[in-house]
Amino acid sequence: MEQYSVFGKPLPRIDAWEKVTGEARYLDDIFMPGMLYGKVLRSPHAHARIVRIDTQKAEALRGVRAVITHRDTPGVKFSFFPVFADKLPLCRDKVRYIGDEVAAVAAETAAIAEQALSLIEVEYDLLPAVTDLEEAMKPGAPLVHEDKEKNIAFEGHKSFGDIKKGFADSDYIFEDRYVTSKVAHCCMETHGCIASFDRLGKLTVMMPSQAPHTVRQEIARILDIPRSKVRIVVPAVGGGFGQRLVTDMKVPAAAILSRIARRPVKIVNTREDEFCTARTRYPYIVELKTGVRKDGRILARQARVLIDNGAYNDKGPATLNYAGECFAVLYNVPHVRYDGYGVYTNKQFGTAFRGFGNVQVTFATESQLDEIAEKLGMGPEEIRLKNANKPNELMSCGATVTSCGLVECIRETMKKSGWDEKRKMKTDLGNGWYRGIGMATMVHTGAGGRFYGYAATDTFTKISEDGCITVISPAPEIGQGGKMVVAQITAEVLGVDPSRITVINNDTDIIPYDLGAWGSRTSFVCGNAAKAAAESVKEEIFGAAAKMLQTTPGKLCARDEKIFIDEDPSKAVSFEEAAVYAVSNLGYPLSGKGRYTDPLAPQVGIDKKYGHHLPTFTFACHVVEVEVDSGTGEVKVVKVTAAQDTGRTINRHMAEGQIEGSILQGLGYAISEECVEDGGRMMNPTFADYKIQTAVDAPPYDVILIETDDPDGPFGAKGIGEPALVPLPAAVGNAVYHATGVRFKKLPLNQERVYFSLKKEKG
Amino acid sequence: MEQYSVFGKPLPRIDAWEKVTGEARYLDDIFMPGMLYGKVLRSPHAHARIVRIDTQKAEALRGVRAVITHRDTPGVKFSFFPVFADKLPLCRDKVRYIGDEVAAVAAETAAIAEQALSLIEVEYDLLPAVTDLEEAMKPGAPLVHEDKEKNIAFEGHKSFGDIKKGFADSDYIFEDRYVTSKVAHCCMETHGCIASFDRLGKLTVMMPSQAPHTVRQEIARILDIPRSKVRIVVPAVGGGFGQRLVTDMKVPAAAILSRIARRPVKIVNTREDEFCTARTRYPYIVELKTGVRKDGRILARQARVLIDNGAYNDKGPATLNYAGECFAVLYNVPHVRYDGYGVYTNKQFGTAFRGFGNVQVTFATESQLDEIAEKLGMGPEEIRLKNANKPNELMSCGATVTSCGLVECIRETMKKSGWDEKRKMKTDLGNGWYRGIGMATMVHTGAGGRFYGYAATDTFTKISEDGCITVISPAPEIGQGGKMVVAQITAEVLGVDPSRITVINNDTDIIPYDLGAWGSRTSFVCGNAAKAAAESVKEEIFGAAAKMLQTTPGKLCARDEKIFIDEDPSKAVSFEEAAVYAVSNLGYPLSGKGRYTDPLAPQVGIDKKYGHHLPTFTFACHVVEVEVDSGTGEVKVVKVTAAQDTGRTINRHMAEGQIEGSILQGLGYAISEECVEDGGRMMNPTFADYKIQTAVDAPPYDVILIETDDPDGPFGAKGIGEPALVPLPAAVGNAVYHATGVRFKKLPLNQERVYFSLKKEKG
Repeated sequence: MEQYSVFGKPLPRIDAWEKVTGEARYLDDIFMPGMLYGKVLRSPHAHARIVRIDTQKAEALRGVRAVITHRDTPGVKFSFFPVFADKLPLCRDKVRYIGDEVAAVAAETAAIAEQALSLIEVEYDLLPAVTDLEEAMKPGAPLVHEDKEKNIAFEGHKSFGDIKKGFADSDYIFEDRYVTSKVAHCCMETHGCIASFDRLGKLTVMMPSQAPHTVRQEIARILDIPRSKVRIVVPAVGGGFGQRLVTDMKVPAAAILSRIARRPVKIVNTREDEFCTARTRYPYIVELKTGVRKDGRILARQARVLIDNGAYNDKGPATLNYAGECFAVLYNVPHVRYDGYGVYTNKQFGTAFRGFGNVQVTFATESQLDEIAEKLGMGPEEIRLKNANKPNELMSCGATVTSCGLVECIRETMKKSGWDEKRKMKTDLGNGWYRGIGMATMVHTGAGGRFYGYAATDTFTKISEDGCITVISPAPEIGQGGKMVVAQITAEVLGVDPSRITVINNDTDIIPYDLGAWGSRTSFVCGNAAKAAAESVKEEIFGAAAKMLQTTPGKLCARDEKIFIDEDPSKAVSFEEAAVYAVSNLGYPLSGKGRYTDPLAPQVGIDKKYGHHLPTFTFACHVVEVEVDSGTGEVKVVKVTAAQDTGRTINRHMAEGQIEGSILQGLGYAISEECVEDGGRMMNPTFADYKIQTAVDAPPYDVILIETDDPDGPFGAKGIGEPALVPLPAAVGNAVYHATGVRFKKLPLNQERVYFSLKKEKG
Repeated sequence: MEQYSVFGKPLPRIDAWEKVTGEARYLDDIFMPGMLYGKVLRSPHAHARIVRIDTQKAEALRGVRAVITHRDTPGVKFSFFPVFADKLPLCRDKVRYIGDEVAAVAAETAAIAEQALSLIEVEYDLLPAVTDLEEAMKPGAPLVHEDKEKNIAFEGHKSFGDIKKGFADSDYIFEDRYVTSKVAHCCMETHGCIASFDRLGKLTVMMPSQAPHTVRQEIARILDIPRSKVRIVVPAVGGGFGQRLVTDMKVPAAAILSRIARRPVKIVNTREDEFCTARTRYPYIVELKTGVRKDGRILARQARVLIDNGAYNDKGPATLNYAGECFAVLYNVPHVRYDGYGVYTNKQFGTAFRGFGNVQVTFATESQLDEIAEKLGMGPEEIRLKNANKPNELMSCGATVTSCGLVECIRETMKKSGWDEKRKMKTDLGNGWYRGIGMATMVHTGAGGRFYGYAATDTFTKISEDGCITVISPAPEIGQGGKMVVAQITAEVLGVDPSRITVINNDTDIIPYDLGAWGSRTSFVCGNAAKAAAESVKEEIFGAAAKMLQTTPGKLCARDEKIFIDEDPSKAVSFEEAAVYAVSNLGYPLSGKGRYTDPLAPQVGIDKKYGHHLPTFTFACHVVEVEVDSGTGEVKVVKVTAAQDTGRTINRHMAEGQIEGSILQGLGYAISEECVEDGGRMMNPTFADYKIQTAVDAPPYDVILIETDDPDGPFGAKGIGEPALVPLPAAVGNAVYHATGVRFKKLPLNQERVYFSLKKEKG
């Protein structure tokens, strides 16, 4: 008999039916009696002083119920990290990017609200805008925030070992500069909210969110009200990818409009709003210097990283730091130095995005590694295997890698992709077409972080009198399967079918405190808490079953909807019978509480050795095969072989889905997507002009799950939401290099760039 | 310093603001997008065969979305107790009372639905109806249910000691017959629901309920779907009084309409619907025989109790049994016999109502006791004190009384009312006015019952990262203060202000399994569970505070929003600081689970000695002063002195409110309220004709809380929701007798009855 009967199985998700039938209600499907429609007036200028705002005409328009400007806000500056607060919910003196929030309107219809916006008169005094990252760093550049001396928004520095010695001991030193692009999350559902203040001053916000408690904190801070006066309720969510970790400024605007109008106010982004204002992946410039020995061992790595922060801080400081952590862990480099700078520009700003800074830096490190290998006469796979992380290894940065399947990931992708043969094949296909194969690896957190001591959460589980189970878990469901992870783990512990389980996970007034779905932490943190809660209620139902079977709970097993004596499975009661017996005959309800805490978290402060900040690591290796048309610049991805260390797989379907989704999103990042900007204005804010990779573009995938059995994960599982995106751009770049001999150090490898580069390099 | 800082204090309710501002949303305030309006077609006949139902014209009416008859139901017969199932959700062959559900309609507006009802053609074949309880018992009476041999719906018999010996040993035997009336609950809010089936077959019902899990079970049974497919969500509730323990047949009708129309369906009773069909208090006939010794000791009590059950079973069997339990406990009578019969009639049926059968029987026993005392030459107080229950006494029926303040209740009401003097005063005031004073006592459960092993519940409590507290408790809030009870107990344990607490209590998908607000069990059962949950989370926050104060948790106290070292209160942290520290510095969320189980409940079966069925008892004595106008028959209640054994009072304001409300409702029952019926038709279904006692009718109250510190209650508390109604009718009758010398054995003592009785007796 297999060890597990539910865990690991490719079962259909418990929330699948509501998705495929259309029963799931997304924010835009929700209407409340008396609901008003809100719209936000945004700055048309990248940088300007606000001389005057006159809202009288807008207020006088029939059907308008509230018009607000900065005068209606508490004027509290805000950022995701309070220490970096720099944004007002509505601009007071200045606008800092095209799209900055200036005023907002609530009206009986969306059309009236739109018309009212056009009646608001704003007089601007234009200021010189700075829209280039490196220009912004120059002395004398226009200041985005005048209360700061320069446009450096934040810095982050890390240093381990002795970087000078590292380079001195190296046989070769490589220095390269990599540039990544600004891309959008492109969630199927745009941002939106329905904010509703009640007469007692309690604000309920319905919004798609992947971190409702965090959002609660932020909204409370922006509105200057207690957190307990804010309730976040999350309807079905059409994708997150990091974009829904933070509070869009529409939310406080809707809240204030609701407070004034005494009605619920809905604001939903159009797709154009979304592209232009809903935040992006941060563009990076990575100046990378690496020292290696002749035998391929990496001795020293140094990076100077510049982040185009846009007009305001958001998750920038964290992406900068996090990228630095992974930078030091991959290949356990003994001597590391990492210097990062976030730079203000008069542009739309960035936020968290699947891969979280690590993607950008990994594009640099894994692209350069191929160049190093070539110089040393090694294969790309050879240098990676040489340096690969091993299980249970202490890193130079202080982190301990526990489970680790990097070597297996590399070996399996090689095997499944036919790496050895394909690397040797002729790359010139004739007719201007070239074929190539490339690989890249990565390390990423498999369980969020230990920052703020928040590597913890609670879960409540109850079994009803008919044996149906409710899990009150903070695991967000953003399409990634958070509910099913909780259900499947609970079902494994209790030996039942997951369809027996309802997961309540969408209301801050109810769910236990938790930081939400980021850092691929849900499966690990919420999964562990759900497992503990299930184990606690299992003790209770085993107590009842033991009475029914005249045995002791210790002798019982639960599996396939039955509770039975392990030594004699014919002595069994059904799960349902045991539940009914407990409630009706023994007179007690069935419920449990479970908790996950990271035993090391309390000892970790922001000042300590940073490696401790990640409870566990996950690894991956991707092999990408491409065909490149030098005539058109087209990069055609013909196959992706992706191996990922999943700890143990919770649900094969969902794991493969996450990996395939990451690959497709990563391919878009690598070869087609880009927010094209001109003077701070996005020029392609539609899916006609912004080219995502769709289902029809998807190449054949070969997804390999490397099960390493994490010692701390629930049943050995680790997070897998983000990692598979991380190595993709470098793997594509390496494959294109293999095909064409042309190295791309700037993303994306879109047709235009590839065409002109090949033309230049190859004539 | 007082023992408690929050418990017992007359603090404002945490839900007071939402009530007084109108923020609280009752069912009728709730509108859902696409919601339809439902109406029920009811039988105009007390008893008839259904020959034909034609719904075609109704279906053809523009705006009608669904019309249903019995053909659209699963045809499962139903009763609150499945063993007594006798009612179809929509009648098939016969209608059995004026108001019986025949068909239902859902339409775009209520007016269209109403019009559609008039288009449904029902052909009836009239049957002889039986509308008198005693007529119904006669051989040859028309059968209400033809599948039964007679109109006896159920029986209940109890026997303790040796009733023959009891009477043989008695010096005097008294035999009397008492008749109580049919009265309505008269909740401020009428019954209603919004039922909504989703595409996955899950039914959500929004409805005012005092027992959402019970209702879930019933609806699942009627619709023949799993319980897990039913979710009950309870909005603000405008009064319960027992009427909202069970499922009104509107709910399955609305559910089926919703399933067909694929839209939410709202059905709300008009006041006339409510009076005619929403169930009432059961009218009783009590034939009472009591044997006493010369010295006043009651030796034997025998009752034959007939309940006018109406057309269908509901809570009848339970009210019959429960009344028998109290009958044997009050005064610990050694020899008891109790024979009860529920009798079908072609009339609106009854259900649970504050006092639950005990009121009717207590009217008999406490009226007769005054007659016995008079015969023996004793004062009413003297015979009661002689026989009064004492604490920690084993009853002849097998029950153990733990806390008991009956003697104190009698003595305190005597003192506060000036009993001794007033009993001696001249009763004839001249001008046809008479003055009198009377008393009555009672025993009632203080904690629900142990039936079905359900004297148990769970509670989850979490403290958020800012120190605000959520209690997930099944304690229903029906206006009685269920939320505040939970909040105040939690606040006492954690040493915080109750305003810090949110209680989540209204959704069966979320709250732990629980039987709801009946039998005055909420404070005791849910209160104990809330206390346990609070104690569990207190351990956690004390862990954090101990670290902050560099001490051990055992040395800490919580009070006044502070956690401090007991021996040196200057060493303190605020509750909020400790919460923030736990989450942010120690890295763990704060939560607890609490459970109350009754250790004796599992040993109690329906066959065991019945006294064990009540976990604790509460006692009361009321003294009523009246002035009676023989010229008009008016009974003017000039003062009520009410002493109630509350265990320990949780909140004096709320306790007094419950007692005052009970008194006013009991006064209505005693002197003015009555559902006047003619041939099974209610003749006074409006507040113009059905005379409740309103605020302007309220006499001066003197409410005395006798705090007996129950050994098993939370902080010593017992339930107080129902008991104060129980002795009222007898106390009024005894006062009127004292005033006029005329004994009333039939309720109500309304003007007509009093006028004619006085005229007959006194000329």
